[in-house]
Amino acid sequence: MALPEGDTIEETARFAPRFGPDGLIAAILADAATNDVLMFAWMNQEALALTLETGEAHFWSRSRRKLWRKGETSGEVFAVVEILTDCDQDALLLRAEARGQGAACHTGRRSCFYRALDSAAPGALVFRDARRLIER
Amino acid sequence: MALPEGDTIEETARFAPRFGPDGLIAAILADAATNDVLMFAWMNQEALALTLETGEAHFWSRSRRKLWRKGETSGEVFAVVEILTDCDQDALLLRAEARGQGAACHTGRRSCFYRALDSAAPGALVFRDARRLIER
Repeated sequence: MALPEGDTIEETARFAPRFGPDGLIAAILADAATNDVLMFAWMNQEALALTLETGEAHFWSRSRRKLWRKGETSGEVFAVVEILTDCDQDALLLRAEARGQGAACHTGRRSCFYRALDSAAPGALVFRDARRLIER
Repeated sequence: MALPEGDTIEETARFAPRFGPDGLIAAILADAATNDVLMFAWMNQEALALTLETGEAHFWSRSRRKLWRKGETSGEVFAVVEILTDCDQDALLLRAEARGQGAACHTGRRSCFYRALDSAAPGALVFRDARRLIER
């Protein structure tokens, strides 16, 4: 989408998402209540359009190469409260509320970011949250 | 980095970041105190190594094609409190504390995600936080 003349991508009030050469834009899913980052994923134009149309988070699965309505098999649907774009409009932040048990991760955990680098042991990870809200 | 036999990328306690074909891994910068997402960026192996070594966030600038110590010109340095990896280890979440005025965005704003899609007007953005903490 072209911007009005003289407008910059950082200061415009026009939404002009910059999909990459692969047709994808980075999308961060966060908990609308706590701000916790739940997942990092990708969207194509169709996933974004369906998210806006239905109010439920849709993504593009790079590994399965298909459109993906989040929760379509698990029931772990996320209702989008707000979508933010970043300064150069090549990343989106979806603030959402869980409609299922709140497991955003396919492993059944609340967030995909459940392990942290161990500052005491290089190359090791510490589980910050190992609890599974749903069975896989 | 290879995982021990029988270990899966989701359940291993071994840090095995999966850099893409371009040598980059997605990195989300978040405020360690509030969890607010501040910026989406990329890291190469060197940026990650320097971040671990110095405790200050380093990234790879795709547009400038160079390593970038965040805050090197602006003074808006971010001290990394914790680095988390996601389930399939192809994205990192850096929880950090601002050492400068707290402007993570190059526009001088606190976060790069300062505009939201206007639910009442398709294609329009609403400024959620237009305040600049520093001059460009």
